[in-house]
Amino acid sequence: RCFHFCKLPGRVMGIRLLRFTSVVIIVLLLVAGALTALLPTIKDDKLPNSRREPKTQSQSALDSFTLIMQTYNRTDLLLKLLNHYQAIPQLHKVIVVWNNIGEKTPEEMWNSLGPHPVPVVFKVQTVNRMRNRLQNFPDLETKAVLMMDDDTLVSAHDLAFAFSVWKQFPEHIVGFVPRKHISTPSGVYSYGSFELQNPGFGNGDQYSMVLIGAAFFHSGYLEDFQRQPEPVYALIDETQNCDDIAMNFLVARHTGKPSGVFVKPVDIRNLEKDTNSGYSGMWHRAEHLLQRSYCVNKLVNIYDGMPLKYSNIMISQFGFPNYANHKNKM
Amino acid sequence: RCFHFCKLPGRVMGIRLLRFTSVVIIVLLLVAGALTALLPTIKDDKLPNSRREPKTQSQSALDSFTLIMQTYNRTDLLLKLLNHYQAIPQLHKVIVVWNNIGEKTPEEMWNSLGPHPVPVVFKVQTVNRMRNRLQNFPDLETKAVLMMDDDTLVSAHDLAFAFSVWKQFPEHIVGFVPRKHISTPSGVYSYGSFELQNPGFGNGDQYSMVLIGAAFFHSGYLEDFQRQPEPVYALIDETQNCDDIAMNFLVARHTGKPSGVFVKPVDIRNLEKDTNSGYSGMWHRAEHLLQRSYCVNKLVNIYDGMPLKYSNIMISQFGFPNYANHKNKM
Repeated sequence: RCFHFCKLPGRVMGIRLLRFTSVVIIVLLLVAGALTALLPTIKDDKLPNSRREPKTQSQSALDSFTLIMQTYNRTDLLLKLLNHYQAIPQLHKVIVVWNNIGEKTPEEMWNSLGPHPVPVVFKVQTVNRMRNRLQNFPDLETKAVLMMDDDTLVSAHDLAFAFSVWKQFPEHIVGFVPRKHISTPSGVYSYGSFELQNPGFGNGDQYSMVLIGAAFFHSGYLEDFQRQPEPVYALIDETQNCDDIAMNFLVARHTGKPSGVFVKPVDIRNLEKDTNSGYSGMWHRAEHLLQRSYCVNKLVNIYDGMPLKYSNIMISQFGFPNYANHKNKM
Repeated sequence: RCFHFCKLPGRVMGIRLLRFTSVVIIVLLLVAGALTALLPTIKDDKLPNSRREPKTQSQSALDSFTLIMQTYNRTDLLLKLLNHYQAIPQLHKVIVVWNNIGEKTPEEMWNSLGPHPVPVVFKVQTVNRMRNRLQNFPDLETKAVLMMDDDTLVSAHDLAFAFSVWKQFPEHIVGFVPRKHISTPSGVYSYGSFELQNPGFGNGDQYSMVLIGAAFFHSGYLEDFQRQPEPVYALIDETQNCDDIAMNFLVARHTGKPSGVFVKPVDIRNLEKDTNSGYSGMWHRAEHLLQRSYCVNKLVNIYDGMPLKYSNIMISQFGFPNYANHKNKM
């Protein structure tokens, strides 16, 4: 019932309009409320290529690295090493490149022994190739890659430090194993380590490569690696060797500087002798080093020049492990 | 006398003209020859600010460095050190900042014992100030400065290596003596070395300064130093100390990065005990370290902020002095 307003015909119309609009507004609010309740939950998504990652994965792509470990015939070592590496701070994910063709991965067993600190992805390969580890894996979300051989154990301290060094030299291969090439009067190059003649630039030795079997490098180089001349792939496949030398050529060509930065490891171990498989690494083959000299010369041929440059910078961690490791008898 | 040509009047004119022009040409050639003989000899001049340098000075300004050594009351050490440093490869010139006010420099004796590998300039000072060595000397022709205390001997090997490192980090102070500041809960800073608490960024120690008493840095920073706030100069003059801390503040503010890069010296010696003068350095004063903590806090005040940044990078020379100094028990 109306009050004194009702007596006016215009106001009667006004009241009906007011009622109508009120009802419409209330209905709209109810519908909006219902829609809001039905919206999907927006996930916290810092990663460029979002996937369904567990909520524990909070490290951003810039502050962490991906471990890529290729494995062949040493699953016992692989699992031992995974237990160690999975707990390294700033590790984002592990990619295991499974070169055991036709053999089941240990994924089931891995999952049954969860939870794990980070996701581990087993990439099953179809052919047992050395360069399988240099694919541009879509699972890669970080800028930094840590590449490790499946028989090499590097301490968490060394890795944390080397990662901090890589962040200061992101265009270089920052790692623990330095090697060099030398020139001979004939113009033919030879590959080796400190037992080889110094290149002769001042006193001391020089290195021109850092091996990728224990090193950090930018994931962009995996992308670059897919765009190399065919003969490079043929060389690596023919020798089942030298993918790391090829990567050093690639990086040196890209930067015009020494490809690597050598970080002196405090605790690096080769667990090869500990394997039950009896399988010993490729580097035991009689022709291994000769092959690598061969690869250096082939790559110079393919790229029409020697891009590797020498460096004598050796980086260690100030005050670690000995808090006065820089003290001198001043 | 002419021949058959003379009979023609036109040709008579031609002959006279020919003779005349021949004579003119010959005279001009003679004058040109005389002038050429009289021209001064053009000196080989690669240096931007050319001065009358002896012909032995062939190192370009980019490939060499200038040693600046300030001296007070230790002329015997100075001369001993000059004999060592004057022979360092890639040394361009020595500037001795003579803080012995009113005392004659050893220039006469120096000259009488010539020839010397490089020029040595004695800059006589009017007041004995610590910051005299931080003037923008017009004698400076190189991009790089090596600053040395007058009681410090660093081996030629260390200097050659550190210079090569400086060329890779030209905006940093590259030297042999690292120090740090630490923050305390009260917000007051303290200055020290490895005996002080680690700053707590991961394991191991950190340094935030490299002292200029044994270091390479860019000569441009001497120019910058002339443009600092007056209280900085007052602080250095008041304490007769801390010019090196001030330089580290300057460099850190300029780069936004750690001011220094520490190169671990193989052979660095303090010859202080060898002086006949009995004069012992400023750092023996009881208040020396306390003064330096005081300076850190004053500079933070003057610059309204703490610009120093930490680093834990320690650089050594690969394969020197031990040719396998990077070998590990892999």
